[in-house]
Amino acid sequence: MLATPSEKEYFRKSYQQVNGAENHPKILTGETRNNIINTMPYATLSRQAFSRAKFESLLKRRFFYTEAFEIYRTAPSYKGDHRGLYDYGPPGCALLANIVNEWRRHFVIEENMMELDCTSITPEAVLRTSGHVEKFADWMCRDPVKGEFLRADHLVETVLGARLTNNKTALESGGAKDKRLDEATVQQYEEILAKIDNYDGPELGKLIKEHDIRNPNGNGKVEEPSAFNLMFKSTIGPSAAAPVFLRPETAQGQFLNFRKLLDYSQGSLPFASACVGKAYRNEISPRSGLLRVREFLLAEIEHFVDPESNKEHERFHEVEDVELPFLSKETQLSGKTTILKDSIGNAVREKLVDNETLGYFLVRIYLFLIKIGADPQKIRFRQHLNNEMAHYACDCWDAELLTSYGWIECVGCADRSAYDLTVHSKETGTALTVKQPLKEPIKIVEWEASLEKRLIGPRFKKDARKIEAAIYDLDQPALAELATQLNSKGTASISLKEPLSDGRNKVDIPSDVCTVKQVTRVETMREYTPNVIEPAFGIGRILYCVLEHVYWYREQDEAREVLSLPIFTAATKVLLVPLSSNASFKPVIKSLARQLRALGIANNEDTSSVSIGKRYARNDELGTPFAITVDFDTVKDGSITLRERDSTAQVRASHNDIIEAVKNLVANSESWQQVFQRLPEFTAQPQT
Amino acid sequence: MLATPSEKEYFRKSYQQVNGAENHPKILTGETRNNIINTMPYATLSRQAFSRAKFESLLKRRFFYTEAFEIYRTAPSYKGDHRGLYDYGPPGCALLANIVNEWRRHFVIEENMMELDCTSITPEAVLRTSGHVEKFADWMCRDPVKGEFLRADHLVETVLGARLTNNKTALESGGAKDKRLDEATVQQYEEILAKIDNYDGPELGKLIKEHDIRNPNGNGKVEEPSAFNLMFKSTIGPSAAAPVFLRPETAQGQFLNFRKLLDYSQGSLPFASACVGKAYRNEISPRSGLLRVREFLLAEIEHFVDPESNKEHERFHEVEDVELPFLSKETQLSGKTTILKDSIGNAVREKLVDNETLGYFLVRIYLFLIKIGADPQKIRFRQHLNNEMAHYACDCWDAELLTSYGWIECVGCADRSAYDLTVHSKETGTALTVKQPLKEPIKIVEWEASLEKRLIGPRFKKDARKIEAAIYDLDQPALAELATQLNSKGTASISLKEPLSDGRNKVDIPSDVCTVKQVTRVETMREYTPNVIEPAFGIGRILYCVLEHVYWYREQDEAREVLSLPIFTAATKVLLVPLSSNASFKPVIKSLARQLRALGIANNEDTSSVSIGKRYARNDELGTPFAITVDFDTVKDGSITLRERDSTAQVRASHNDIIEAVKNLVANSESWQQVFQRLPEFTAQPQT
Repeated sequence: MLATPSEKEYFRKSYQQVNGAENHPKILTGETRNNIINTMPYATLSRQAFSRAKFESLLKRRFFYTEAFEIYRTAPSYKGDHRGLYDYGPPGCALLANIVNEWRRHFVIEENMMELDCTSITPEAVLRTSGHVEKFADWMCRDPVKGEFLRADHLVETVLGARLTNNKTALESGGAKDKRLDEATVQQYEEILAKIDNYDGPELGKLIKEHDIRNPNGNGKVEEPSAFNLMFKSTIGPSAAAPVFLRPETAQGQFLNFRKLLDYSQGSLPFASACVGKAYRNEISPRSGLLRVREFLLAEIEHFVDPESNKEHERFHEVEDVELPFLSKETQLSGKTTILKDSIGNAVREKLVDNETLGYFLVRIYLFLIKIGADPQKIRFRQHLNNEMAHYACDCWDAELLTSYGWIECVGCADRSAYDLTVHSKETGTALTVKQPLKEPIKIVEWEASLEKRLIGPRFKKDARKIEAAIYDLDQPALAELATQLNSKGTASISLKEPLSDGRNKVDIPSDVCTVKQVTRVETMREYTPNVIEPAFGIGRILYCVLEHVYWYREQDEAREVLSLPIFTAATKVLLVPLSSNASFKPVIKSLARQLRALGIANNEDTSSVSIGKRYARNDELGTPFAITVDFDTVKDGSITLRERDSTAQVRASHNDIIEAVKNLVANSESWQQVFQRLPEFTAQPQT
Repeated sequence: MLATPSEKEYFRKSYQQVNGAENHPKILTGETRNNIINTMPYATLSRQAFSRAKFESLLKRRFFYTEAFEIYRTAPSYKGDHRGLYDYGPPGCALLANIVNEWRRHFVIEENMMELDCTSITPEAVLRTSGHVEKFADWMCRDPVKGEFLRADHLVETVLGARLTNNKTALESGGAKDKRLDEATVQQYEEILAKIDNYDGPELGKLIKEHDIRNPNGNGKVEEPSAFNLMFKSTIGPSAAAPVFLRPETAQGQFLNFRKLLDYSQGSLPFASACVGKAYRNEISPRSGLLRVREFLLAEIEHFVDPESNKEHERFHEVEDVELPFLSKETQLSGKTTILKDSIGNAVREKLVDNETLGYFLVRIYLFLIKIGADPQKIRFRQHLNNEMAHYACDCWDAELLTSYGWIECVGCADRSAYDLTVHSKETGTALTVKQPLKEPIKIVEWEASLEKRLIGPRFKKDARKIEAAIYDLDQPALAELATQLNSKGTASISLKEPLSDGRNKVDIPSDVCTVKQVTRVETMREYTPNVIEPAFGIGRILYCVLEHVYWYREQDEAREVLSLPIFTAATKVLLVPLSSNASFKPVIKSLARQLRALGIANNEDTSSVSIGKRYARNDELGTPFAITVDFDTVKDGSITLRERDSTAQVRASHNDIIEAVKNLVANSESWQQVFQRLPEFTAQPQT
């Protein structure tokens, strides 16, 4: 179906609103976007060498995050493996909250989703039914000498990766020939690494033996891989009789509320629920900073859809022209990582992406990631391999962001089919289904048995109940056969599950006791279990990757680093800087702070005694998009200056004009370019 | 100190902004407020009889919240004590998020607090140091016959409360005289109940014996009270060697980050940190719906202040005229509950409230509660009794809201003094202190011992080190004494902790080895441990209490219930209603939905086939403040109607005018009264 012009126009406008662009001839190709967004200098930064050490030092120095209970980790009395637990400091915490707010606006409000807030503490019964107690595990190997536990796939990855790197170094330096790998081995290692997510425990065990893979710490042999469940366990109540887990995902809470959600949406499908909250995974070996942690913020959507609808989506036509970067299952299994760019319309038509609903969400995810600052050239959608898929999923695409750690899975978009609703329904005896009036009632002709109760009791005595049950249990083909026998022979033989009192498993029924006839029934309702498409966002990972994407440094001075966070995600919007500690500046700063607060605009005074330039630089590192400076001219004529972070350009105008401009910039009703053209430029001191 | 007129004006204006009032002669008295806010009919609802059953049925029917995993609780296979765990449905979840957003704006942005996001999983070492492992417990009694665990104070409360009620009934009905309580007993029971939070475990055990208090379920005797720790315990990592707890409060994460916070605020005090997140308490016996739960949302502020500043607050003068309702410790200990109304200025001057910082926060808490919909006449500040106080607190005031369950603690405002920073600093060996340059350097004269190393080694051989250590360990009075002895006798006796190699605990030191002199030292820095004032908000409790406060029903029809939620907290701002299922209405509704979405305004279509009146009524129950109706005139002339929830009044205007009005109403830049005066009233059908 083609979009109406007005709908396309609406979509184009929302996209422009996101990007502050006036015009863009082709929607959403990375290059075009980069050309038009000059406040987000991806072009510049992609040319710059990236030092992770320098970048992470900035994040820690500016308190974006820190290891939790850091002061305890260095205390003499402290013991334990508490890796993978992080606290967010003020700029990180505000960034997190701003991303979540935008997520709510972009998904929950835009699509009228029903947001829930479900408990983390979950009874064992729920997670046993969902399959998590049995299957939510990673494979680990113990090194008996060191007493260390290693994640089996990471072990293989690390050791083979190191061998390949050593080989490359040896080749390049022309080192000892006996230390080089032969070409077949190189190819074998590369294939293993490309499919690393596809191996189960026994397969990993085989690889470890075959390739003599050992613990890099001490070179000891490791034991066979064993499954380690990743859920944190506890007990509840004073009796401690009931085991509970911390949820590994927010999804289960949403599934268990299905009936109430259906009610709330007045019985009609499709609909979506959503949940933002902490989830917990007791990782075997947390690593890579914020990327593999044990406690993390998850934002999940469960979109419930009729499986007989072909999973079509009402708004798919609005997005069908958007081009996405795909890495399919087939490409990966051939050992390659080539990205295919195609419109989502084509991808769904050609069954690369299974259905419209999945396709619609991939586009919405893509737009969201770009909106909050991801570089469009560093996004790809990777399809899960079969063995990699979670136990509940039948298809899954990950949105991955490219970072110095490689491509990182940030959003998973899985088709969970009817798995969860079916298992919970069965376990609880609660119908988790939708009843829908059929457009045309259906006539159903079927065989029906009726028993002559008057005769069956006296004739079969205490076996009568068993025989009745056996007859009512017969399916349609068996009933048809029964009718034939009764009609032709006047009697029929029935098999029984429960033997009769004399031990027989069969009984003959005469036609005076039992008759089988064809009857016609009219059905007006259809009952079905919805399928679920689940986009799941790891907010902490997204935050880290986006920070890498918006990080750069000034060409003229590598020490002057900048985080070009979009205005709406930045923790502080405006830095307030008095030129010096002169007493006459203080009331102006206080009054500016008060006005901004009243507008709900987060601001920060920097009255430290270091130079203006250093104070600007500190706030560039925090990603603060604007700075207002108060100097001696302010005291004379009331004018103040406004500085923009990325360009370091400044304008000077009256107190009220600048506040008005900041208000517009923060509300996204005016761009910096517009403000810069409208208000007089300021080039004199204070210099940056 | 008096506020300057401009500051008072600022404060008055922010208050007006909250309440949408043009004028109010006296700040913040309940009556005045009620008269001016006619969209919040407290006056009406306080006259109405309140049925909790009817109210809670509304909350469940409209999916504000539900018991978590409800479908499992009724499943045959399911066992366990999972009370006190609730999920919020769409209107409850949005309300929760809106309250948190307002909390951030009212506290974090307004006061430039540093918000953190800390982990819930906390190592045992941290909570052992903080005292929670030992002291964060409630007293419980086991009924050995029923196998039940009862919270000891609740048991006493329930049983004595029931006896008093029975007595009252007996008196009123003139029932059997022998079943009545004598007056002394009645008075004794009432005194116990007024002080119920003041008893510890052994005292509760004594009361239970003295008054023969038994388990109301079966009348069995209960065992002595024992302490039950309220933290959920788990283990982390594959080795499972390290015990962890789920945090019982967010505060500890903030304390552990003290040094980074101090850094971030560039070394200057006072400052405040904040944290919003889930906290967990393994309650012995959860009850009262959302009021006593095991997993809950907590929003805590830690305000760090110099203890030598008298805990003065820079902005106290802005609030000093605000009148608050106090229930002091003294009043409660006299067995009374009389509320004293006084300005916070007087309360601090008269030491009812200990200091300005505590007082400032009490006012800010009061304003916040009113802003989000609490009835000012149902708020009081109750001071904790000594035994009731948490182990870390030295003074505490609770903001309590009056509900059908009685007065409910919703915000605790505790003075934690230097307790937490001191214990963590000691345990980790990390200085959690502030260093401040002294205005005037201080000259300090003190005794100092110096040893003749050249002599002490040869003379005392391997005992030399022990003797040195003993001398350097001496405090000032001991050094003074040593100086006197050496000067008068030429030798002095020193006591040793570690005995010498010959077993002696004392040694004589001659004056050629050791000399003690007075020296003068100049100190330029002062080092101190800050004190902490902690306002802690139980968001779920606040949500429940506020819902009770804004609940009422139409005078003409008790079945027509309304939740008069403030616009900014309501989940959905606008209901979109087509008059009927006529196809011509559909595009108008779609276009309205799209426009509102683009403005970020949450809206909901109700296209169900029930009458307009029923659809309005459903949304009154959800607290949706506005409804836009599309009817046949819309199709003709493009006009639509806008209905306000509380008054049910309607205006009719063009599509664009109504969208503009909604935008203003939601942004709080125009009140409903203004819109109603500006746009033509609509009184024809559709009727409500």
